[in-house]
Amino acid sequence: MRNPLGGCLKVTEAGMTRRCWISIVVLCIFLGSIATEGMAAVEREKLLTDPGVYATFAIFKMEEDWWKLDKAVRASTSESVKAVFAKHSDRVITDTYLVRGISEKADFMVRLHATDLIHNQNFLLDLMSSPLGKYLRNLQTYKGITKKPTYAALFPEDLKAALKAPAEPGSKPYAIVIPVRKDAAWWNTEVEGRIQMLREHAEASVPYLRTVKRKLYHTTGLDNLDFITYFETAHLEDFNNLVLALQRVKEYRYTVHTGNPILVGTIRPLEDILEVLAR
Amino acid sequence: MRNPLGGCLKVTEAGMTRRCWISIVVLCIFLGSIATEGMAAVEREKLLTDPGVYATFAIFKMEEDWWKLDKAVRASTSESVKAVFAKHSDRVITDTYLVRGISEKADFMVRLHATDLIHNQNFLLDLMSSPLGKYLRNLQTYKGITKKPTYAALFPEDLKAALKAPAEPGSKPYAIVIPVRKDAAWWNTEVEGRIQMLREHAEASVPYLRTVKRKLYHTTGLDNLDFITYFETAHLEDFNNLVLALQRVKEYRYTVHTGNPILVGTIRPLEDILEVLAR
Amino acid sequence: MRNPLGGCLKVTEAGMTRRCWISIVVLCIFLGSIATEGMAAVEREKLLTDPGVYATFAIFKMEEDWWKLDKAVRASTSESVKAVFAKHSDRVITDTYLVRGISEKADFMVRLHATDLIHNQNFLLDLMSSPLGKYLRNLQTYKGITKKPTYAALFPEDLKAALKAPAEPGSKPYAIVIPVRKDAAWWNTEVEGRIQMLREHAEASVPYLRTVKRKLYHTTGLDNLDFITYFETAHLEDFNNLVLALQRVKEYRYTVHTGNPILVGTIRPLEDILEVLAR
Amino acid sequence: MRNPLGGCLKVTEAGMTRRCWISIVVLCIFLGSIATEGMAAVEREKLLTDPGVYATFAIFKMEEDWWKLDKAVRASTSESVKAVFAKHSDRVITDTYLVRGISEKADFMVRLHATDLIHNQNFLLDLMSSPLGKYLRNLQTYKGITKKPTYAALFPEDLKAALKAPAEPGSKPYAIVIPVRKDAAWWNTEVEGRIQMLREHAEASVPYLRTVKRKLYHTTGLDNLDFITYFETAHLEDFNNLVLALQRVKEYRYTVHTGNPILVGTIRPLEDILEVLAR
Amino acid sequence: MRNPLGGCLKVTEAGMTRRCWISIVVLCIFLGSIATEGMAAVEREKLLTDPGVYATFAIFKMEEDWWKLDKAVRASTSESVKAVFAKHSDRVITDTYLVRGISEKADFMVRLHATDLIHNQNFLLDLMSSPLGKYLRNLQTYKGITKKPTYAALFPEDLKAALKAPAEPGSKPYAIVIPVRKDAAWWNTEVEGRIQMLREHAEASVPYLRTVKRKLYHTTGLDNLDFITYFETAHLEDFNNLVLALQRVKEYRYTVHTGNPILVGTIRPLEDILEVLAR
Repeated sequence: MRNPLGGCLKVTEAGMTRRCWISIVVLCIFLGSIATEGMAAVEREKLLTDPGVYATFAIFKMEEDWWKLDKAVRASTSESVKAVFAKHSDRVITDTYLVRGISEKADFMVRLHATDLIHNQNFLLDLMSSPLGKYLRNLQTYKGITKKPTYAALFPEDLKAALKAPAEPGSKPYAIVIPVRKDAAWWNTEVEGRIQMLREHAEASVPYLRTVKRKLYHTTGLDNLDFITYFETAHLEDFNNLVLALQRVKEYRYTVHTGNPILVGTIRPLEDILEVLAR
Repeated sequence: MRNPLGGCLKVTEAGMTRRCWISIVVLCIFLGSIATEGMAAVEREKLLTDPGVYATFAIFKMEEDWWKLDKAVRASTSESVKAVFAKHSDRVITDTYLVRGISEKADFMVRLHATDLIHNQNFLLDLMSSPLGKYLRNLQTYKGITKKPTYAALFPEDLKAALKAPAEPGSKPYAIVIPVRKDAAWWNTEVEGRIQMLREHAEASVPYLRTVKRKLYHTTGLDNLDFITYFETAHLEDFNNLVLALQRVKEYRYTVHTGNPILVGTIRPLEDILEVLAR
Repeated sequence: MRNPLGGCLKVTEAGMTRRCWISIVVLCIFLGSIATEGMAAVEREKLLTDPGVYATFAIFKMEEDWWKLDKAVRASTSESVKAVFAKHSDRVITDTYLVRGISEKADFMVRLHATDLIHNQNFLLDLMSSPLGKYLRNLQTYKGITKKPTYAALFPEDLKAALKAPAEPGSKPYAIVIPVRKDAAWWNTEVEGRIQMLREHAEASVPYLRTVKRKLYHTTGLDNLDFITYFETAHLEDFNNLVLALQRVKEYRYTVHTGNPILVGTIRPLEDILEVLAR
Repeated sequence: MRNPLGGCLKVTEAGMTRRCWISIVVLCIFLGSIATEGMAAVEREKLLTDPGVYATFAIFKMEEDWWKLDKAVRASTSESVKAVFAKHSDRVITDTYLVRGISEKADFMVRLHATDLIHNQNFLLDLMSSPLGKYLRNLQTYKGITKKPTYAALFPEDLKAALKAPAEPGSKPYAIVIPVRKDAAWWNTEVEGRIQMLREHAEASVPYLRTVKRKLYHTTGLDNLDFITYFETAHLEDFNNLVLALQRVKEYRYTVHTGNPILVGTIRPLEDILEVLAR
Repeated sequence: MRNPLGGCLKVTEAGMTRRCWISIVVLCIFLGSIATEGMAAVEREKLLTDPGVYATFAIFKMEEDWWKLDKAVRASTSESVKAVFAKHSDRVITDTYLVRGISEKADFMVRLHATDLIHNQNFLLDLMSSPLGKYLRNLQTYKGITKKPTYAALFPEDLKAALKAPAEPGSKPYAIVIPVRKDAAWWNTEVEGRIQMLREHAEASVPYLRTVKRKLYHTTGLDNLDFITYFETAHLEDFNNLVLALQRVKEYRYTVHTGNPILVGTIRPLEDILEVLAR
């Protein structure tokens, strides 16, 4: 599948006046949206559900100088950011989160999914080299792989059925990222013991499946973590109760706590995030 | 309930000269104070006592460049800060604390209460985008939910009565924030054991209820914490003795210590904090 | 007791030219020294020995830009620093320490004693808003309360007598601050056990009482500490042997070690510290 | 063996105009590539397989100001970087890695091998003094020594044979650096116990030898580590499974976890890295 | 003994033009070298072997702005640095180490020995106030005291004799600093147990005495350490094997590991270090 934007974006790599850059970008996005629209939904669904997909959670904060720039200058950088998203849209699917005002650590987060990690790297290289990107501090870049469930196949049938309950419809504005590392005692526990503990963990989560969506990424060796757990919800108190329930099962004793890694944000379109950054 | 300031503040979002901005802001605050005065006290009391309320403790330090700005320039930013407080006043109640000169970590703290966390986020987005806000470093943003007491209902009647003793009247100039995380052994203790330990904890606090006011927020999953404990007092030595008493009960063994999170400040009106920042 | 400097210093809060500021300051210091001289020695002795006094250890480092300022500009800020010390001298007693060149963490430290913590806060607000203060990084602000000895009353008579041995006369140029936190096991030990361990601790210190002066501050709940221990000596090797002796008693097992908090400096008058900062 | 570039590069140490510098550098590289080409492959293979070789992993991030420089200015610094690599090429072999966009910690990494550590130091002194180098933040510099396998000689014959299985041909675009420290209990275990645990460790790695290349460096005393483990692979999921397998053997219990040291990057020629830095 | 440089250097404390400063400095160095030459070797030997000497390890990194200064400006600061060394040379003996390019933490280290710690402080105050010093970041300043060996007197005669074996002649270009803290269990072990463990420690070091020189400093109470261990060697692999051997004895179990404190550098004259900083 060829990127229909490729041609015009190659040109933009040479130095151009800002006006020229913006014109081309707008055109590219227009053309791109025609070409990729049909493909996107299917691809997106597949990358979000398939095993063997590489996800990158890139967490950014603007440098302090950014906010002292003239509002017009800041706003003028938006189009080139959108162009980066468009340029890579046939290889990398993206989700954007506004963290500013909720977690002090960051201003926003981009979640990337691709069939190869290098696609995510190439996306981020372009993002960080764009006019806005030059003001980005890349605070954290978690990397994970999606896998077929390892243990769930061994759970009792009723638990398996309960875990398949669909989430309630409606938007889920809040997203939470909790990186997890298990200690050596966990990994040195024989597999039956781990399955038993994960079964208790899964059972504790059942009451919250309707209001809290979850997705798991495996990171051992790619980061100083074992898992990235990702949540979406409209009900933060349910989420709070879910995590409390998970802390009350035995498996929680094997979790390593380091630093201050939990990140909470609101799911917002790129357009909105760029508007906040230009305020 | 519609924000009576909404109309005029929408206009201010576009670029204006500073003089124009200030004029409108002053007018808005004047109008706003008329419109929201009656509502405020009731709403405030309700948000400070209801369960299911979302609190945000946003802790800020000015960038070093701020203090090198001309005093007049710094003073001129005050009105737009007040405008942010006014704009959100029908959704978010606020308390302000001067930390500068007491805890090295920060210059000031804002405590926000709202029925939804996103209201607090929107407040902070505006605050941090105001002319003064561009010089803010957001050092910490703790998030918590208020809940009905979980265990207190199971305490003996005399302890329940003692815990309801009213605080002595008079202003309490000092506020202290102590974030708390309990370890896995705590959460894995069966509920009876936890109730018993919390009863000892509550009994130890009784002698200090008159002079030290307390409020509890639940944060599990929203921050790398389980609770934010918040205190107000006029008698720091009583507070010191209270914390000592709480360290001598068994429940303290399950508290995790990480970093340097205690924050002490004096409760001061926004006006005073802005004056200090403009000195 | 009214501050005789109050009147003229109020005026200085408005914007003035530097020349004007300095003239008034010099006058104030002159007048102030006449008015407060007699009172100072008594007050100072009282605040340094009474229980219920609030001490603040404010530790500062100059920003890197400071050292690039012209020497004359830096020297010109000294008078306004002295004015801050003079303005608050009837409420806050001060000691100054040059840390630069001994501990990498800081350039200097100010120790404040007052009957209320807010007096120390007000002093530091003024110090940090002075022309020199705008270049200060406030690295640490430990807060403590003095109390009557809790356990010493229960020590044997001969130990009590030994602990009252006066320090040898003569100046003690070195000061050391060691913040201390005891673990949950310590606070959960029944009081007899703690007294017994503190008795061993006190006995180990007896041989060094003549050459190492000590003072204890209680900080539980005000900082993430339980005590600030403060030492003065002319003989650092004695001090080294004292701390070694204290590490060999059982009580040391209950001390929590976090970070790198020990601070060593030389006791020097404010005048000298300002001279070093203007070099 | 004399560096054929030595003569012309000595001249460049004096101040010259940029144009002059670049001309000479280009010439040097041209001459250098003729002179060192034949030697390089043999030397490189030897330094990468011999024991007693000193490796340095130098990890860099560009300062924030770098990205605000004009693209042409940034691009103009490339030649002098290449000149540093050429100047030292007869003493130091180099590998370059693009980390930007994968691990937030760094922009790129250089791995150096030489027969003496001071050659690596001299390379890095020149690199960091080049026009681009003045914008480098040297985040980490791991140092290690290659040694003959200590324990492998004592493994059973079939394991020894399995460990000699060649890696599959083809490029391995990803490189991962995992620093390792073993705890005191490990080093205090008698040698037989350690051999037995390392045998389990080696057996767990056998299924991944074809797709994941490994190299071991000894660092005890040179860094706060005991080993640097270095991996290359085209299959990150295999790598993830390898590390999981290694976490399930007993030896993993003796690994100390501190900070966030894992580094992932893509192996890219210096030319490509310089292009990314000039974007 | 009076400092023959005292007279002319006093003058330099007032503001002077750079040309004037340099002239006087050059003169002072010239005069100083005549006056102190004969004394230096004896004094140096004495301070490096006597007990009761205060050593300061001051570790520095240049600010990022330094490297952007014109090469000529940087080079012009060298003389005033040499003047600081000369001014204090009759009270403080100095050794200089180039760390840049080996350990990421620092650019260089100065080791000072004097009979009183305040002499080291005064040296560093002058160094950091020199034109080059204004660009120094003082990353670490370890302080230690030399003492007569405490336990060695109790070792068996053959071990005592072995420990007196002279190091092989020839230059030792590498220096390593390893700060050490022992835990409470160590200090609470009765003295016989500690002697026995230190004997094993000493025995493990015997094979490396010829190629690795060692010196020990006591720091308890002066830094959050108990010892600074200092090594010089021409054979880093021997040093690596020495540290491995020391990790295999029981005493190593009582060592506390915090942070990343090991520092490796090459011993180089001040002249060379200043040349690197001016590149």
